[in-house]
Formats: sequence, C-alpha cells, structure tokens
Amino acid sequence: MAGISPAEQAAMARARELALRGPRGVNPQVGAVLLAPDGAVLAEGWHRGAGTPHAEVDALSRVSPAQARGTTAVVTLEPCNHTGRTGPCAEALVAAGVARVVHASADPGDASSGGAERLRAAGVDVARADEAEGDALIADWLFVQRTGRPRVTVKWAQSLDGRAAAADGTSRWITGPEARAHVHRERAAHDAIAVGTGTVLADDPQLTARIDGEDAPQPLPVVFGDRPVPEAAALRRHPRGLRIATRDLERELFALAADGIQALYVEGGPTLASAFLRAGLADRLTVYLAPTLLGGPRTALDDIGVGTIDEQRRLTVSRLEQLGRDLLVEATTEKER
Amino acid sequence: MAGISPAEQAAMARARELALRGPRGVNPQVGAVLLAPDGAVLAEGWHRGAGTPHAEVDALSRVSPAQARGTTAVVTLEPCNHTGRTGPCAEALVAAGVARVVHASADPGDASSGGAERLRAAGVDVARADEAEGDALIADWLFVQRTGRPRVTVKWAQSLDGRAAAADGTSRWITGPEARAHVHRERAAHDAIAVGTGTVLADDPQLTARIDGEDAPQPLPVVFGDRPVPEAAALRRHPRGLRIATRDLERELFALAADGIQALYVEGGPTLASAFLRAGLADRLTVYLAPTLLGGPRTALDDIGVGTIDEQRRLTVSRLEQLGRDLLVEATTEKER
Repeated sequence: MAGISPAEQAAMARARELALRGPRGVNPQVGAVLLAPDGAVLAEGWHRGAGTPHAEVDALSRVSPAQARGTTAVVTLEPCNHTGRTGPCAEALVAAGVARVVHASADPGDASSGGAERLRAAGVDVARADEAEGDALIADWLFVQRTGRPRVTVKWAQSLDGRAAAADGTSRWITGPEARAHVHRERAAHDAIAVGTGTVLADDPQLTARIDGEDAPQPLPVVFGDRPVPEAAALRRHPRGLRIATRDLERELFALAADGIQALYVEGGPTLASAFLRAGLADRLTVYLAPTLLGGPRTALDDIGVGTIDEQRRLTVSRLEQLGRDLLVEATTEKER
Repeated sequence: MAGISPAEQAAMARARELALRGPRGVNPQVGAVLLAPDGAVLAEGWHRGAGTPHAEVDALSRVSPAQARGTTAVVTLEPCNHTGRTGPCAEALVAAGVARVVHASADPGDASSGGAERLRAAGVDVARADEAEGDALIADWLFVQRTGRPRVTVKWAQSLDGRAAAADGTSRWITGPEARAHVHRERAAHDAIAVGTGTVLADDPQLTARIDGEDAPQPLPVVFGDRPVPEAAALRRHPRGLRIATRDLERELFALAADGIQALYVEGGPTLASAFLRAGLADRLTVYLAPTLLGGPRTALDDIGVGTIDEQRRLTVSRLEQLGRDLLVEATTEKER
C-alpha cells in the first residue's frame, strides 16, 4: 500500500494473527502492534471479547507512558470512537501521544465509526492499509453489522435426483466419508448449528464437530421448532449446551446475532432448510451430491415458495469440488451477488 | 499390432472410415480394403445395409478374379460364416483366392461367428488387428447382439434440487443455451428418441435434432404410452415419421432392435424416465443440472422402485462437464460396470 512502510506491513500481518487469538462474538476479532519510531515492535495486543480492552488499548497497556509517546499503532480495524463498556480507543491513542495509526478495515458502526477522523483532528497521522485483508478477517462480523443477523449457510446432502432419503426414510449413508469429514470441518467453522425438531426426533444427532486429530471448536446447537426435545436426546449432552428457538426465523436470527453468533450452519432437515430458503434467509448453500438415485417422496427440499418458473431461485456457484465419489456444490443465492 | 504390417494398419484405419459410410441398422457398419501382395490398395468396400453385399464382398466385386488372387483383405469385422440374405463371406474370400485376412472385431453372432476358423481351415492366413478400435466402431451394434435391445440413454434436465418444473408446471428455460445445444447433438447421435404421451400432450415437442450449420441426422421419434397422440401434434410432422409404443418397455425395446435401432435416447418426461430406471433398462444417464432451486412437487424422477436405502441405484460418473452455467453429469448405472 502507498504510504505504508515494510515494517508496518509486517506488523499488520502479525496483527491479523493476533486478532484470531480472540473469540468470535458480538465484538470483532481485532489485533494491534505498537511500533517504535525506528520500526521495532514494542508491544502486541488483541481483543479478548466484550467488556475487555480493545486491541490497541491492550497493546498500549504493555508499555510505559514514556515508551508510548511518538509510537505507531498498527491495528486491523479502525480505532473506535464511542464509549461502550470501554472508553473510545481514538481518545486513548491521542492521550498516549501515539504519533501515527495504520488501520485496515473501516469501522462500520453507527456509534463507533469516525475514529480515524477524530485521530486526524487531534494531529495524529492516519494511514489506511489493505482493506480487503482486514475485511476478510472479520467478514462474518461485518455481515452482522450490515444485516443485524448471522450469515446463514444451508447445507444438505442429496442423491443426484434431489432426495435426502429412500421412501422408508433410511438414508445412511448417501454420501461417502470424504463428504462427511467435510461437514465436520464446516461445523467447526460456524458459531452455531441449526436443526429442526423433526431431525432431532428422527435422527437424534450429536451435532458435535469431530475432526481427526484436532480439538475442534464446538458450535452451539440450536433446535428450531414447536415440538419438545426429548430428555434423552443426545443433543442434551452437547458440550455447548442447547438453545431452543421458535419458528420465527428472522426474530431468532436477530437474537442469535445479539448473543454473538456471527455464522449459522443450518443442517436440516428438509423442513428447516426449505423454511430458510422460503424466507430468503439462506446466504450460502453447500449441497453434497451423491452419485446415486433414490426417486420417491423424500426430497431434500420441499416447498421453497416458487410457484412459477419466473420465481426460480437462481444460484451463483462459487465452488465445485469432488469429495471422494461425491460432488460438493457451493453457491450463493443471487440476491447476494 | 504384432504381425500386422504398416500398410495393413493404414488400410484398417481407412476401412474404419469406409464403415461409417454405411447406415446404422440391424447390421453392423463394416469397411474393407483389398491390398495387393506389395501392399498397394486394389479396392475399397463397405456394407450398405441389410440385403446388400458385405464389405469384403463389395471390395472383391471391384477387382477381376485374376486380381483378387493372392491379395490381403483388411476388414473391420471378422468375415461372417453363415448364409443369410447373402452368402458367407469367409467362403467368398476362399473362393476368390484371397491369401490373407486381417480383421479387428470378432463376430459375436451365434450363427455368423467362426469365419476366421473357416478361413484358416482353407489355408488362408488370418491375423487379428486392434480389437478395441474395431469394437468402438460398432459398440452399439455389439450391445444389441449381447442384450437383444438398444443401448438406452436416459436424459433429463433438473434444478439442483431435482425438479423438472416449477409448481405450476412451467419450466422454460431451466437450463441455458449451451446445455440445450448439447441435447441436440445427443439426439443426432442416437437412432431413436423416446418420449411419453404426457410430454407430447404437455409440451408438443418437435424432437428434431437441430445443430447450427449442419444437416443433422434425424432420429426416429417413439411415443410410449396409452393416450393417443393428437392429430395436430408437431411430432406428426416429424421427417422420420412417428412410432407408437406401449408401456411394455422390454418388448418394445426388442422390437426396436429388430428394426435396426441400436441406440435409444429417452427424453422424458419424469414418468417415462422413471419407468426405464425402475425396469433396469437405463444403461447411460445424462443429467443437466441447472444452478437454480425450485422446490415443490414436480420432481424430474418419481418412483424408481427404491423402497429402502440398500436398494439405492448407485451410479458411476463417467463425465462431469460445465456447459455454460449448467453442469452435465454423465453416468452409467452400476450393473453396467
């Protein structure tokens, strides 16, 4: 980037790594590195979640007031400009006598944005690093800021002809081990997994992320529907506990976002997947296609609100990958383009 | 091939070209080249359909008896050994004084095989050229000899979720122009196209092969079902005429093979495609997947006789190709492996 020194670029790469040490939640993951005027690293910081110091303040706290004076703060996100549970970072940086701030993403918040402007007004030199890399780091959080709800991935496995099960309901296994392993990695990459009560009653799933040789992050299980989850259900022993949700999808999504869920993985069954599609609340689809035919009544989707061909839900395929004998189709719904 | 001279190899390549000048029908397409002892081409021949001379006899007829003596006959298929509407070719070659016969495919017929043996018994030198290339030339005819019926390709277009149409029956266009152009080339590569009466009544298709800038071969349209084809149907003006068939698929296939149909293209709709799959009479599938979702009741297949998951119809995918925005999945049913 123009105007960004090699030392600052290296510090930004390090700040992105530091950011990932913090938790995903209502706040974004942010990292910061404090550089001496000669480019030496003085301190590192990252945000450890709501109510704890922001990354740049965390880094400042690790040096003496004298050391802080005249430094450059390299931060993955524009320093905030509002007083929440912590004071505004822009002010803290000014008070500490920081001479220059390099940041990547802009703060999109109504209340928190304007930090760069405030810094400049106080005589601090402000430079913008590669925005795309900063935004990629907090893509789901930015999505939540824009829409008020988590980014929703709807996943299903089907035979080539679109069935989730044979006529009698049996379905183990349509897809092969490679596709099933991929599903576990996807689970671990989301903050919560949604299933309908029908799936809980029919399959009694564990909904844990199981990845060979890794201590996988466990997303929060959320059960949508009206029927109660049996006391003996495997889900009641999930390490993250269990959240019960109604059929009011939009309202439940807002509530999940308010509780720090940035990315939701909808695992089915057909009723819930179709409800998300019908409501226009499916942002990304992952469809596992098995090279087999089943025919019969048990389709992987039911009514998604398409009455006539002009209402079809066109997809943009973003990825096509063979997983063993199966095919993974990743797509976004076209409104997302 | 061991024991085959370069001149004979070149003659075999030419014989395969000549074979394709003949028609597809109850008889195989066969080509022949007659070589002088020094390797010079003396005559070419090919089979022009049932009741006309076989390829090697056609070639022999173009030289004088004196010229024929001591020559080498290069033929794509083993000379026949039986008297049908024409005499046995093996005998004609012996009588003509041919010194050597080079052939590719073996004759699989119960009545017609044994030509090579008969030639050898008469002192003719017999050599076998590359069988695979000969067999590829007449793959469909060999399939008919083995099974008594045409090779059946079942084709359908569907949304990613397996629907052929929206809830109200509208379906124009699910797939794009590239996929539709591909269908026309597939039509031209088959001897007949099958549709159900439901499709005739709903869509009034022309079922002609239309390929830009080419005079495409026109397959015979065959309508399966119990309901009559209306007098005004577009199919009644098809250049090849129209064949009506019952719902007794196996019997109709035997009858089609007896009339020289080696390869049948089943174009739908869902009822007919499912009937072929249910009866185990689908050898090859071509499925055009459009990147769109429809949901609802109009599935591209209905009941294919799979009651439980152990009865699923596993496929072997032989080709995966992007056609514009669509995806073509070519597969064989696993019994075919």
